[in-house]
Amino acid sequence: MPPHPVAETAPVRPSFARWLSASNSVTGQFLAVGASRDHINLGGGLPDPALYPLTEIEAAARRALDRHGRDILNYGPVAGLPELRRAIAARMHIGGSPCSPDNVMITCGSMQALDLIGKALIDPGDAIAAQSPTYLGALDAWRPRQPAYRLIDVAAGEAGRAERLAGAKFAYVVPNFSNPTGALVGAGMRRAILAAAVAAGVWLVEDDPYAVLYFDRAPLARIIDLDAAEVVDGVYRGSVVYLGSLSKSLVPGLRIGWVVACPEMIAALTLAKQAADLSTSPVAQAIALEVITADIVERHAPRLIEHYRRRRDAICAAAEDHLRPWFTWQRPEGGMFLWLTANSPGLDTDRVRAAALDLGVVVSPSSAFHPQELARNGLRLNFTLNDEDRLRLGVERLAEAARRVAEGRI
Amino acid sequence: MPPHPVAETAPVRPSFARWLSASNSVTGQFLAVGASRDHINLGGGLPDPALYPLTEIEAAARRALDRHGRDILNYGPVAGLPELRRAIAARMHIGGSPCSPDNVMITCGSMQALDLIGKALIDPGDAIAAQSPTYLGALDAWRPRQPAYRLIDVAAGEAGRAERLAGAKFAYVVPNFSNPTGALVGAGMRRAILAAAVAAGVWLVEDDPYAVLYFDRAPLARIIDLDAAEVVDGVYRGSVVYLGSLSKSLVPGLRIGWVVACPEMIAALTLAKQAADLSTSPVAQAIALEVITADIVERHAPRLIEHYRRRRDAICAAAEDHLRPWFTWQRPEGGMFLWLTANSPGLDTDRVRAAALDLGVVVSPSSAFHPQELARNGLRLNFTLNDEDRLRLGVERLAEAARRVAEGRI
Repeated sequence: MPPHPVAETAPVRPSFARWLSASNSVTGQFLAVGASRDHINLGGGLPDPALYPLTEIEAAARRALDRHGRDILNYGPVAGLPELRRAIAARMHIGGSPCSPDNVMITCGSMQALDLIGKALIDPGDAIAAQSPTYLGALDAWRPRQPAYRLIDVAAGEAGRAERLAGAKFAYVVPNFSNPTGALVGAGMRRAILAAAVAAGVWLVEDDPYAVLYFDRAPLARIIDLDAAEVVDGVYRGSVVYLGSLSKSLVPGLRIGWVVACPEMIAALTLAKQAADLSTSPVAQAIALEVITADIVERHAPRLIEHYRRRRDAICAAAEDHLRPWFTWQRPEGGMFLWLTANSPGLDTDRVRAAALDLGVVVSPSSAFHPQELARNGLRLNFTLNDEDRLRLGVERLAEAARRVAEGRI
Repeated sequence: MPPHPVAETAPVRPSFARWLSASNSVTGQFLAVGASRDHINLGGGLPDPALYPLTEIEAAARRALDRHGRDILNYGPVAGLPELRRAIAARMHIGGSPCSPDNVMITCGSMQALDLIGKALIDPGDAIAAQSPTYLGALDAWRPRQPAYRLIDVAAGEAGRAERLAGAKFAYVVPNFSNPTGALVGAGMRRAILAAAVAAGVWLVEDDPYAVLYFDRAPLARIIDLDAAEVVDGVYRGSVVYLGSLSKSLVPGLRIGWVVACPEMIAALTLAKQAADLSTSPVAQAIALEVITADIVERHAPRLIEHYRRRRDAICAAAEDHLRPWFTWQRPEGGMFLWLTANSPGLDTDRVRAAALDLGVVVSPSSAFHPQELARNGLRLNFTLNDEDRLRLGVERLAEAARRVAEGRI
């Protein structure tokens, strides 16, 4: 992935901050391509708009306006509307115990939570222990703080060893259907990660946007659930900083996410949020409140899972038919992504991505997910935005792109 | 103003970033107090919810849902909905010339624009030439970047001298009814500021939330209007980075602001926004689009001005009756604030603020508005949130607080 080109400003004007020259160009591209019919967009972590429960969300929006009226046209409290914080705290059930609204803060999607965590914890030279490969949005969020990275291979168990985490400000993991690899971290490893974080004395950021997207089995306990002993008098006091979101389980357009953490962390993140945007739109928060209290996510989940499971099956079948000469993969048990690893170290996936783009399919290359070295041996394919036919067509085009690169034709 | 106390975390956990220990506690306080009946809140820059055109905004919200439906439940493009960028570009009229949608980016209020400007321009050690005193939200927004400040006394004409700006990454001014002083920068000084910024080769951030709140005269040309020669082929290419907002002219709760700047700056800010929250809620943006295209701001402005003018008159009359022994001020010609300067250098306005809080009135002290030295000789009073009776009562209580501090009784 070449650095994103920021156009040079006229020489009479001051230069932009240094971190901008290393920004990623993948996110902007897949957000811009969206659901264009010209390209098959397997590049982003985008849900399928055709599956949004539009009628129910519109009804929730009308209720929000009717019930809250003038109040939600004001600035809201920085940490979020009290009713929404209460509703999320009541549903959070850390290992079965409800937590306190003081444990909850509302953000503009989990993306903002990642930004605020970087702001609240990272000074120049500080280190982050991050899963490798790492969600590119997290890398984006932390880049302005210019952290050092200690990469931990979660699949190899490194996240469960305290000596790999010690000295970092925080460790970052996505245990449910990780972005980008789609991997599910097992119950034993979750316990090991929590124990390692506590032993190392680091904060543990558990990013969980795909929590409801289990296709094949009942959900595992979240890492924060395993820390239920830290709920004292109804308030969570532990080291896990849990990130939830409506973006993947319902709709991204409300831009509503939440952090669950100890009150000291919530206080620090609230100061960081005050400095970032004063508050998330109370209008959007009130709609989210109506959505959550009407259990729309829970009622919508079975339909979402049914469709996404079929798509997972379709992309895996198409990969089996067309991609075996070039790639290896694990069948994901949920989430949004199929992660391909090149069979040959000579198959440069930045070049495969470029060739695929010429053939009308957008994919995200592994180089976008590595904070340090530019690994060019993987591709992330999203299977939730497109229907089965388009997924098959996208995989066929990708196979052709891989063939062209492997044969040195481009 | 003492630094805001962030509770110490348990010793086993890493410390928070250093800048957090210097955050302001004023904003969180006035947002939390809001329109509480127990306190007369003169502390924030809050509009009066009773004046919101609720019916029209609710109708706009319903139209937004009807017209855009599923589309606005998606992630939006990072820089904003194209229709909203077009609508703002068409209304911007830089010195009479419409500008391009490529000159426009949508933000979560102007607050986020300030945050993104800091991210996009400030590396460690870089300097900001900021009006003194400076809007505390801007100081908040830039604190995580730990800039150096060069304070410029705009009233004394320092902003119009290139040698005062040279070497900074950008200069920051609020020409219309400045926050906190309420001062209106005259036409000649506006020209001088633009010329100085161009001569010094710095970006010039023109923060303009109070643009419509002229009570006594027709609006002056904005600084960006004076740079209309930089509109070439319909695209603005100059050095001004203009910030607009719906928060003070209509409602804050949509959290919709916008930046108008050259395309290179918009590209850099877009990358910074991608790293901050991916996009402002498309639901809120679509409501803003309906609000703007229905000219609700323009139709609402006369009523807002009429009410706020009466309140400005009331607070000035009450100040005349009660505050002359302690303070001096200029009658503001618009905006939201009356700025008081202590007659005696011995009257510590941090102590006056604390005494006033005990008496049930919230004001913001000058110490919150100074990036370097803690000037304790001023107070900012908001006159837009409360009606005339409560303004008078607030001023009476403030006079009593000043008397107590001056007499050494507290």
